[in-house]
Amino acid sequence: MEPVERVARHFQDELEQLKTRLLEMGGLAEEQVRLAVQALVDRDRDLVERVLNGDEPLNALHIEIDGRCFTLLALYQPMAVDLRAIVAAVKINTDLERVGDLAVNIAEAVRRYAVHPPVKKLIDIPRMATIAQLMLRDALDAFVRRDTDLAQHVLNEDDTLDSLKTQIFRELLTYMLQDPGTIEAALDLILISRHLERIGDHATNIAEDVIFMVSARDVRHHAGEGPASF
Amino acid sequence: MEPVERVARHFQDELEQLKTRLLEMGGLAEEQVRLAVQALVDRDRDLVERVLNGDEPLNALHIEIDGRCFTLLALYQPMAVDLRAIVAAVKINTDLERVGDLAVNIAEAVRRYAVHPPVKKLIDIPRMATIAQLMLRDALDAFVRRDTDLAQHVLNEDDTLDSLKTQIFRELLTYMLQDPGTIEAALDLILISRHLERIGDHATNIAEDVIFMVSARDVRHHAGEGPASF
Repeated sequence: MEPVERVARHFQDELEQLKTRLLEMGGLAEEQVRLAVQALVDRDRDLVERVLNGDEPLNALHIEIDGRCFTLLALYQPMAVDLRAIVAAVKINTDLERVGDLAVNIAEAVRRYAVHPPVKKLIDIPRMATIAQLMLRDALDAFVRRDTDLAQHVLNEDDTLDSLKTQIFRELLTYMLQDPGTIEAALDLILISRHLERIGDHATNIAEDVIFMVSARDVRHHAGEGPASF
Repeated sequence: MEPVERVARHFQDELEQLKTRLLEMGGLAEEQVRLAVQALVDRDRDLVERVLNGDEPLNALHIEIDGRCFTLLALYQPMAVDLRAIVAAVKINTDLERVGDLAVNIAEAVRRYAVHPPVKKLIDIPRMATIAQLMLRDALDAFVRRDTDLAQHVLNEDDTLDSLKTQIFRELLTYMLQDPGTIEAALDLILISRHLERIGDHATNIAEDVIFMVSARDVRHHAGEGPASF
């Protein structure tokens, strides 16, 4: 094999590893969200503690992935779509770390919520969680497969999440106005629904990065024309 | 001048321009936050509309700065601290765009809040806004001057913002429990205080990026050893 080919193959191998690690991180973040909402539904304080203590592997992966991105940029000096893929990975890595933080925020709200009697049967919040988790998974799949249609689908799902959040807010406001005894618990449910909405926002960010990575409308006339000549 | 020197000088010129644009964007974001909280204090609906319509220049700068970062990476293939500075700029750019979004979210809450009678005299929320704006400015100054002490100062300020948020929450909860007529207005103030806390979080992100950019603990053994040999 020619040296240039060997370098190209090394780069593609490392890029694949980077994607694998990002998927792994996405899986961990998604699982944290799932467990936090499970803890809410089951009023399970042990599960709350598990989520609160479960952030460490995500933080470690965050640092590792950032390191991999810098190494790829520094050693291989990639161009065009490869360059955009690595910059996208840097951004996605940040988004996934924030999703982990939001799962912890949900668990903190669940811990407070669980000392009050239930305000209502929980249907819409678990639904929001399911949608947000799926958006996250689809956004990462779209990144790995460079699939702009799937990324666009994620963007559309964000509206569903927004309307659910608004609906939950209105319903809980009614409860609070009718029975001030529900105020504290309802406030935590409102906060949880907003955390879930923000998880959807992070999935949206990832989907937007995928579309930019693939289509590159803003950088095509600079980065898409092949290697720089100096 | 030797070609290599000329390229190096071009790169430094473009890096300076990138920093100038980031500072400009930071200034716009900070001003949007200032105006949104001014609109809250003065119950000024015209000002609310101005903030809601004032997001466009920020979005345009966001795209421009992202483009500059890609161009710098693609054309100059920077190493070590220069590489970290540009990746930091990509992240900071994202943070500043979100700050702009949060200013809009505050303005939306102010628009709802302004139809209710005032819940209380507003002291702590404007204080939170002042701290968040200052954190943002310091974080960007720390980036431009590569000043880790100033970045560390920003990280410390985040605790002040967190305690103010908790204090505001407790106080407003008391109002809501005593007088359910204040619930809707108090909810908007709680949301505004959380938006301000998140603006502080973005300043914190920027400060962390500055420390990483300067000290590079995670990538030094890869990127800090000089140009790659292939």
